[in-house]
Amino acid sequence: MSTHAARLAALRDTLAATELTGFVIPLTDEHMSEYVGGYAQRLAWLTGFEGSAGAAVVLADKAAMFTDGRYTLQVRAQVDGALYDYISIPETPTTDWLAVNAKAGDRIGYDPWLHTKGWVTATAKALAARGAELVAQPQNPIDSVWATRPAPSGAALEVHDAALAGQSSADKRAAVAAWLKTQNSDAVVITALDSIAWLLNIRGRDVARTPVALAFAIVHADASADLFVEPGKLTDAVRAHLGSDVRTHDRSAFGDALEALGSKTVVADPASAVAAIFERLAAGGARIHETRDPCVLPKAVKNPTEIAGTKAAHLRDGAALTRFLHWFDGEAPKGKLDELQAAAKLRQFRDATNQLEDLSFDTISGAGPNGAIVHYRVSEATNLPITMNSLFLLDSGGQYKDGTTDVTRTMAVGTPTAEMRDRFTRVLKGHIAVARAVFPKGTRGGQLDVLARLPLWEVGLDYAHGTGHGVGSYLSVHEGPQRIATVIGTGGEEPLMPGMILSDEPGYYKTGEYGIRIENLVLVVERDVPGAEKPMYGFETLTLAPIDRNLIDVALLTADERAWVDAYHARVNAEVGPLLDDVQAKWLNAMTAPL
Amino acid sequence: MSTHAARLAALRDTLAATELTGFVIPLTDEHMSEYVGGYAQRLAWLTGFEGSAGAAVVLADKAAMFTDGRYTLQVRAQVDGALYDYISIPETPTTDWLAVNAKAGDRIGYDPWLHTKGWVTATAKALAARGAELVAQPQNPIDSVWATRPAPSGAALEVHDAALAGQSSADKRAAVAAWLKTQNSDAVVITALDSIAWLLNIRGRDVARTPVALAFAIVHADASADLFVEPGKLTDAVRAHLGSDVRTHDRSAFGDALEALGSKTVVADPASAVAAIFERLAAGGARIHETRDPCVLPKAVKNPTEIAGTKAAHLRDGAALTRFLHWFDGEAPKGKLDELQAAAKLRQFRDATNQLEDLSFDTISGAGPNGAIVHYRVSEATNLPITMNSLFLLDSGGQYKDGTTDVTRTMAVGTPTAEMRDRFTRVLKGHIAVARAVFPKGTRGGQLDVLARLPLWEVGLDYAHGTGHGVGSYLSVHEGPQRIATVIGTGGEEPLMPGMILSDEPGYYKTGEYGIRIENLVLVVERDVPGAEKPMYGFETLTLAPIDRNLIDVALLTADERAWVDAYHARVNAEVGPLLDDVQAKWLNAMTAPL
Repeated sequence: MSTHAARLAALRDTLAATELTGFVIPLTDEHMSEYVGGYAQRLAWLTGFEGSAGAAVVLADKAAMFTDGRYTLQVRAQVDGALYDYISIPETPTTDWLAVNAKAGDRIGYDPWLHTKGWVTATAKALAARGAELVAQPQNPIDSVWATRPAPSGAALEVHDAALAGQSSADKRAAVAAWLKTQNSDAVVITALDSIAWLLNIRGRDVARTPVALAFAIVHADASADLFVEPGKLTDAVRAHLGSDVRTHDRSAFGDALEALGSKTVVADPASAVAAIFERLAAGGARIHETRDPCVLPKAVKNPTEIAGTKAAHLRDGAALTRFLHWFDGEAPKGKLDELQAAAKLRQFRDATNQLEDLSFDTISGAGPNGAIVHYRVSEATNLPITMNSLFLLDSGGQYKDGTTDVTRTMAVGTPTAEMRDRFTRVLKGHIAVARAVFPKGTRGGQLDVLARLPLWEVGLDYAHGTGHGVGSYLSVHEGPQRIATVIGTGGEEPLMPGMILSDEPGYYKTGEYGIRIENLVLVVERDVPGAEKPMYGFETLTLAPIDRNLIDVALLTADERAWVDAYHARVNAEVGPLLDDVQAKWLNAMTAPL
Repeated sequence: MSTHAARLAALRDTLAATELTGFVIPLTDEHMSEYVGGYAQRLAWLTGFEGSAGAAVVLADKAAMFTDGRYTLQVRAQVDGALYDYISIPETPTTDWLAVNAKAGDRIGYDPWLHTKGWVTATAKALAARGAELVAQPQNPIDSVWATRPAPSGAALEVHDAALAGQSSADKRAAVAAWLKTQNSDAVVITALDSIAWLLNIRGRDVARTPVALAFAIVHADASADLFVEPGKLTDAVRAHLGSDVRTHDRSAFGDALEALGSKTVVADPASAVAAIFERLAAGGARIHETRDPCVLPKAVKNPTEIAGTKAAHLRDGAALTRFLHWFDGEAPKGKLDELQAAAKLRQFRDATNQLEDLSFDTISGAGPNGAIVHYRVSEATNLPITMNSLFLLDSGGQYKDGTTDVTRTMAVGTPTAEMRDRFTRVLKGHIAVARAVFPKGTRGGQLDVLARLPLWEVGLDYAHGTGHGVGSYLSVHEGPQRIATVIGTGGEEPLMPGMILSDEPGYYKTGEYGIRIENLVLVVERDVPGAEKPMYGFETLTLAPIDRNLIDVALLTADERAWVDAYHARVNAEVGPLLDDVQAKWLNAMTAPL
């Protein structure tokens, strides 16, 4: 019996022993994190699926694996179709699938620490309609069959210095306390890991690529807080930093602490607080006020210190990327490089800054057809050589203590086709349209999305992802609430505010041939427009690295667009050039000459 | 005591007699219509307010008049501040105001035929929290004190010929019946007057500017229908047209018929069906399925016959408007015209087509500063002379049996300032950006809104209204569901489909000085884009009338924009020219010469 067949059988035995006929396995943690630690990789252990989004539902006689369009190929390669039906989650969420496949009398288990209240309510209702029941499990049955399950990371917390944060935790907690009064509430539960890191000016190393620590927090109306974290993670420095107004407790004490809040009015964000939290609050008699985590917006609106930090990080990171681009320009035409080598070399240049804490996400190193896989992740199995007369898409970023970067460049190796240059130039026109936009206060990111698509739409093309996402300050590379996106309800409806950082990353993907994406991070800034009748905003580009001029069809650019490219390149040359050696600087000078 | 003071006092006496301490007076009818007949003008009768949107709440000791920003000045001019507090409805809806101003023990009455279920639920909850009660009134107390209240219009129904409708009512009802099966429902209640007119291919003259008849309808799964309408409105021709599958009943029998549906599953649209309908359905034991009126989308997507009809109507209407523009060009500089005379003259030209059934809305004839009042309605009191070196904004439309028109032109009288020409040209650039847009299937109107604003945003300007609204076929000039708008939840989220008609009407308004708006109606059409990877759509302009070249700063236009204007003007000249007399044609030829 295969490994995953055996694991599935073992899980079914355990379920039967606890009188369950099924169990739901999501891919998240107790904080609804996008990226989770090894201890929470239950879906990968059970099914073999290594994608970043998915779920499984196991019933007594059948099982289903849920993924989205990004993973259509990958799920079939990694998950045994004899054990699991492949289900597309946008069309059929787990709830809908259970509504059809559950049988009368079924008792379907779930881990209340891994699902939102919304999912539990909807799924319980759907099952009830089938005469089945959704049953919360105090212990996750996977954990009892996963003998080698790693313990949650014990990495120590780190102080995020006020010189980097720009605002003390005391000030941040005072602001949250003031907000609590406006909400007529006594306390707020903070469970999003980046919110806790921001609020307390701490960082951690418990989750790959995101410098957060596994913890829960409760902030009170008196601006004091309770932090629930493994004691072993608390160094003397961190204890001193937290001070007496932040009481520390064992992470396992969080649930009881929720009940101990008694009849207080407590704020919880249903988007990030899991179902168990609402259950424990209710069990204690709390009056629950559901609204957005009060850290979300101030975390997104960077203060002057954070802005100065991210600019320093982007200059440093841009120099590392430029060194790589110079190296790549010389090596790639020799025809000996592959995706893994390119990603490793870029990592070397970032490491050489001696300030890289981690990558901000797994590098997307896509040669030729792999570049057309939007969420491609290079591995030994997929590694392709970088061949002549092809395109190479490189999407990467670094975590530095003063800022988080995320940048995509697409390079021509050898001679690009006229079509490649046309598509690249249209993507560039879209990128420029967003970067140059001037818009009134109150404009939502979603309103600007079309600007990036119009040049592609003109020739009947488009791209199947958003145009921009928020980015943290030495935190998550994907940070809300704002987005530049077409879809409604995913952040595109959030008004843009000065201090917010967003990516500007239109693309074009020709399946089986090549992928193009041009991504810079931009900062929302106030624009002084003479005679303006409203406060006007615009974007300042943070990312500093040359855009491959060999892929630009200058004839397709307007005078304004051409001027934007020349001005951007002149700035890259002026700011990055001095950080390079003479050979690199000479190369950059040529790469950034006016078009 | 003033007239309106006396009416308010009389209402309060009546309320007291029925043991009510308050009453809510909205401005709508039993069909949630945008424009209502005289019999339903209770708000205007009670308060004197003549705007198109508002409400009043009368309590024992105070009263409030609710309007939006469009009517800030008008409400103060028409409604006595000694009788009513002026409340801005976007900030403080009636529900919120009652939540603060109602007292424990208050019994606030409402007419369940004039409010949505949503309003009733929210308001009852808000009042309950105050220890007050919301009480449905079988008879509207206004009607008992409004001695001279006109009876609902008795105008006869008219057959909307299949040669104009392009689809028989039987086919439309069959489609609704098929849809009912997909909804597992037995019947659907249709209360929106334009939906009833569309479904049964009938028109009426009960509401000014909109050719609809006061009626209710219920469509059943067997494709038959019950029509509830005053018998006196049914001519032999209409009875013959409706046939035996459409049973006619007295309009007053509708409520009982809802109860008589018994335990059937009945569809009702909470956006257009009033609270009383849900109450009567529930009283009968029906299972209510709330979803969108199934006529809304097919009514919005015009069929080939309707498209041919609207094109004929637009050519006819464009010729009438062009004749007016020629006349205005000669007369205005003499300095003897005023807003009323201009509107009357335009009406004459439209009447001269001998096919005008009605205007599609009250003409907005705005000279100078009045042009800056977005929803201006000219009256003897506000009538301004049209002076030299000023702008004149004229927004008007006609109802023809083959189509409904809506067009705005802004003309310079004498010599416009450089600022006027700059603003006009930016509005034109925005208009062209929408008209020229090519977009993939699935694009929502809201995504395109920014295209119309960008040229204004560049200089810190904007306009405080949507960019486009849907338009009916010899029906409402404001028709859903689609819109081109910034605001979320008002139609901007509706995907655009071939056959939909929208307005493209960006503007700029300088308070106290002038207003600019350029409005054409456009038709969503399929675009054949070579190599397109998706079905692509675009717009075909329906409106045919010259745009004032004296206000265009050609230097601000791109080559593409200039080409668009020249091509549009060439088309206007080629299509409208032959319908004009020689003098008019010669003038149009000059006005439409290449820029």
